[in-house]
Amino acid sequence: MAKIMAVNAGSSSLKFQLLEMPAEQVIAKGLIERIGMDDAIVTIKYTADDQAAQNDKVTVDGEKAKFKDVTAIKDHEAAINFMLARLSGLGIIEDFNEIVGVGHRVVAGGEEFKHSVVVTPEVLKKIEDLADYAPLHNPANAQGIIAFQKLLPDAISVAVFDTSFHQTMPKENYLYSLPYEYYTRYGARKYGAHGTSHRYVAGRAAKILGQKLEDLKLITMHLGAGASITAIQGGKSYDTSMGFTPLAGVTMATRSGDVDVSLVDYIQNKEGLSNEEMLNILNKKSGLQGISMLSSDMRDLRAARDTNENAELAIQIFVNRVVRYVGQYIAEMGGADAIVFTAGIGENADWIRKEISDKLGYFGIELDDAKNAINGQEEIISKDSSKIKVLLVPTDEELMIARDVQSLMNK
Amino acid sequence: MAKIMAVNAGSSSLKFQLLEMPAEQVIAKGLIERIGMDDAIVTIKYTADDQAAQNDKVTVDGEKAKFKDVTAIKDHEAAINFMLARLSGLGIIEDFNEIVGVGHRVVAGGEEFKHSVVVTPEVLKKIEDLADYAPLHNPANAQGIIAFQKLLPDAISVAVFDTSFHQTMPKENYLYSLPYEYYTRYGARKYGAHGTSHRYVAGRAAKILGQKLEDLKLITMHLGAGASITAIQGGKSYDTSMGFTPLAGVTMATRSGDVDVSLVDYIQNKEGLSNEEMLNILNKKSGLQGISMLSSDMRDLRAARDTNENAELAIQIFVNRVVRYVGQYIAEMGGADAIVFTAGIGENADWIRKEISDKLGYFGIELDDAKNAINGQEEIISKDSSKIKVLLVPTDEELMIARDVQSLMNK
Repeated sequence: MAKIMAVNAGSSSLKFQLLEMPAEQVIAKGLIERIGMDDAIVTIKYTADDQAAQNDKVTVDGEKAKFKDVTAIKDHEAAINFMLARLSGLGIIEDFNEIVGVGHRVVAGGEEFKHSVVVTPEVLKKIEDLADYAPLHNPANAQGIIAFQKLLPDAISVAVFDTSFHQTMPKENYLYSLPYEYYTRYGARKYGAHGTSHRYVAGRAAKILGQKLEDLKLITMHLGAGASITAIQGGKSYDTSMGFTPLAGVTMATRSGDVDVSLVDYIQNKEGLSNEEMLNILNKKSGLQGISMLSSDMRDLRAARDTNENAELAIQIFVNRVVRYVGQYIAEMGGADAIVFTAGIGENADWIRKEISDKLGYFGIELDDAKNAINGQEEIISKDSSKIKVLLVPTDEELMIARDVQSLMNK
Repeated sequence: MAKIMAVNAGSSSLKFQLLEMPAEQVIAKGLIERIGMDDAIVTIKYTADDQAAQNDKVTVDGEKAKFKDVTAIKDHEAAINFMLARLSGLGIIEDFNEIVGVGHRVVAGGEEFKHSVVVTPEVLKKIEDLADYAPLHNPANAQGIIAFQKLLPDAISVAVFDTSFHQTMPKENYLYSLPYEYYTRYGARKYGAHGTSHRYVAGRAAKILGQKLEDLKLITMHLGAGASITAIQGGKSYDTSMGFTPLAGVTMATRSGDVDVSLVDYIQNKEGLSNEEMLNILNKKSGLQGISMLSSDMRDLRAARDTNENAELAIQIFVNRVVRYVGQYIAEMGGADAIVFTAGIGENADWIRKEISDKLGYFGIELDDAKNAINGQEEIISKDSSKIKVLLVPTDEELMIARDVQSLMNK
């Protein structure tokens, strides 16, 4: 048995999950926030043992233990150092060398990375070079890789890209109708995102349906604060709603999704906004938040919809945009065997799964209300007679990352 | 019988068609280009009579006469004056007063104009005020109206808006996922375009199908140099592919259609382009022209596709984008009774109608190759067994304008 860590490093945060592989069992997971500050917050959740309650930073609830500390953490290396020391101090690991592999989520892989790869110095350089495509994320991802390589020099280091899964899209689907030289010169094309999640739930969907992934046409709907929809044919991404960046596609918590570029310029002129300011608004003040003027959280909108016209409107627009993309992908693939709900909203909002499914009734989608009432677990939630099956599959990107690490270790 | 003129005034051009109503017979049509120049070009096509060949500016081909002159024309009023004098001189009209109504195409009608209207001073002012939404078009449209009102003071003057037909869209379809205040403050929403064309072909489609428009779900595809696709439910526009401006939607001759806004900013930074320069590229150097690097004309691309990879790619992308929107609208409306091809490409490119229809086979669309071989005339081109009918309907915006004028005259 080997322990593998799945890491998602942001510019001032680091999320991790430690898994026992191949048992696929989560041993611990945690988050370090406010890296670079004097009051960084470190949280680690793990299974309680007898000693757990003896540490004054630990609270215990049944079998669940939670370590929390606020301390000065100057950079990613210090964060990881602190975290590894705690994992050891809390008895979660006995020796750092138990961690045989670390898998890093990397946001942008461009056209270079069509699969997860072992991080060599050349790979690391390419990840840094791809910062152009994800200026906020790739440099932070690279920092995480460098720090782990220094502190766990014997562990294999693997990069798992958000974009890799979508590298199978045909050119007519990923290319924009722009001057072609922007593609050849700058890589201007659709890359998509959430690839690890779409790949994971597609694999699970095939298992649940008892069919081979190669034989299926699936539409996976990752509906969280960020949301994207992917057409998956024979296990390969055929099209996806996010674009060159994760701004495009369906309505999200605070992101606009698709907008007429001319309208953006028109608003900039009216409001006197620079491109940077406008993009900030499109990313952080639009979507459900922007329409509703109330909240970016679907739960708040649901609670308010009966009395707040804009909350209702935000929900309707969200549903409409999902329905539009499902229709697109049924048309592009020439049908679908199943549609799959996942991520925060997809996994937990049975009512919105119902509203979306009902609007897709023409395609022979029939939701089973009783089955749909169960949230957060794998389930076929359509009726047996449903022509296109509807599935609920909680996503697990960390597990997918750990699997990729293990598969590359065995090569 | 009354003569009605349908007018499309641009900033330096004026297109017109003179119709005998209600016979709906075209008496003459013409174009004045390079208004404001010393070498403006005036062309008038009409049915030849005995005298036609006696004018040295006229060429005659069977029953068809064509007047052409190059002369100095200083403004719209001079252009219309010249044109009316020629109509009279060529014996096409005997007296200016025969023209009892003039219908003007106006590009942007905002939320104000949900139908065609008789132009009062208030209407004219609103058209001018709406220039914000169509800075190149509305001022020119207004100039045309003013000049005609001066020269034909007794003729009724009617404004027919490109956007009116789409005013029936539900809010969740026309609103973007932007801060709501941009809608209330600046009218930031989807307005669509080509409304007169979509309205015309939808009406014809119902006639051809022998059904009531109120009972039908139609998807009309106006595929010309500009291209838009509209979902029409019960005769009312339910959704349309163009957005706040005609830049959005499917791939067009030189317009990009939908693009990730972040990508546009990325390209601007790389190329050092202002918003204005970038929008110019998105409008005039993108689309089929941009992808193919060869031509904006579908005929050229077809001729080159076997030997030119980018010509082939441009065709594939065009087909893909149309298919995506048809899929969207089938999903949104919950089905469709018929899809309708119109405008330059839609009416004349049987091969692209076939490629699009074949990709929509999943929905039960079966094209009849023999019927499809006929271009440019009204026809059901699907097999009898086709679940969704496929129609070819040449558009006639001028006739629709003339009909609107007549209907407002009779009120």
